[in-house]
Amino acid sequence: MTPRTTATRLREKVTYDEAVAHAILDEALVCHVGFVVDGSPRVLPTIHARAGSTLYLHGSTGTPLLRLVDPVDGGIEICVTVTLLDGLVLARSQFESSMNYRSVVVHGRGHLVTDHAEREVALHRIVEHVSPGRSATSRAGNARELAATAVLRLDLVEFSVKVSTGEPEDAPSDVTGPHWAGVVPVALRFGAPIPAGDLATGIELPDHLLDYARPGA
Amino acid sequence: MTPRTTATRLREKVTYDEAVAHAILDEALVCHVGFVVDGSPRVLPTIHARAGSTLYLHGSTGTPLLRLVDPVDGGIEICVTVTLLDGLVLARSQFESSMNYRSVVVHGRGHLVTDHAEREVALHRIVEHVSPGRSATSRAGNARELAATAVLRLDLVEFSVKVSTGEPEDAPSDVTGPHWAGVVPVALRFGAPIPAGDLATGIELPDHLLDYARPGA
Repeated sequence: MTPRTTATRLREKVTYDEAVAHAILDEALVCHVGFVVDGSPRVLPTIHARAGSTLYLHGSTGTPLLRLVDPVDGGIEICVTVTLLDGLVLARSQFESSMNYRSVVVHGRGHLVTDHAEREVALHRIVEHVSPGRSATSRAGNARELAATAVLRLDLVEFSVKVSTGEPEDAPSDVTGPHWAGVVPVALRFGAPIPAGDLATGIELPDHLLDYARPGA
Repeated sequence: MTPRTTATRLREKVTYDEAVAHAILDEALVCHVGFVVDGSPRVLPTIHARAGSTLYLHGSTGTPLLRLVDPVDGGIEICVTVTLLDGLVLARSQFESSMNYRSVVVHGRGHLVTDHAEREVALHRIVEHVSPGRSATSRAGNARELAATAVLRLDLVEFSVKVSTGEPEDAPSDVTGPHWAGVVPVALRFGAPIPAGDLATGIELPDHLLDYARPGA
């Protein structure tokens, strides 16, 4: 826990539990990565993946975040946030209305990964993060593709987790009032895989895509 | 279009169309807001709402973002990003694999809203953003609640939109290869509303919650 990961509000349940953070990071398909450009904040969506206590991001070598990496130490200050939305909390009072969600905010200095073996691990994890089993049923990057891909590593050391669950918490004077209260559950829905229009006849859907779901969901 | 909203990559379709940006902002339930704290980036999830060409955020007056507002002009540099995930694009090659999504990145200086009438409009829009019709079936904030709530306005002037749609785009040498390719559709699923455990008997679910859906979805 550091000053920037210390909760200033108590409404959500804040935790620093590593297992909880890892589970949320693994379930979330995308993250939002924040960085500073000429003193101003920038936030972009991207895919992440975790390997142990390390978070990996990847992107084109030409993408803004990766062009800003310090040439001396190969690093850049980033903040990676993932949010899983679980429900709309509709209280009788608008003030108590909120959302149920699970989020992780990770702070730290991302570093370009230059080691070939670690780059391979990271890209493998990213493929598997989106679709477990897919690395065995797709073509891995060739030398040209790998050269065009940058990988950033962020150690999962400085992070906070917020988990907001449960029912509306209206004051007694509102509970006896005229308004409905409750929760609308929210989750991601994955449709049946749609084959590419140019898919050759005889190529079957791989087993790992038969019933796509996120881990933990 | 400004340097920081000018696309550096062509894979996704970048647009600066205001109607497209507004539709994505309206459909997205939450945004991720980035700001700078002591030179480092911070990214937090929050609820937003749009009124014309203005984006509103709100929060406790004690929340980190709002405590950082400049006391002189009531402003703070922020970046607000929303992302709607539409599909997993599983190409034969891992390099061409990606996601279908729609995102908006808004840059600018947020300003605390002090005008009472504008604060009411903003909070009304935020309630209606999450659940259209809800403002009429819930209790609006009282003086104490409103005093504890800060509202930030961000003009929707400097923004960019990325829309990535369609099928995997594998090279011909991969199309004739052994791997399956296609898209797994992704969308939010809203469950049937769950009444609060302490809901008084006789209070019916409001009509506007009978078939919850996001606008445009």
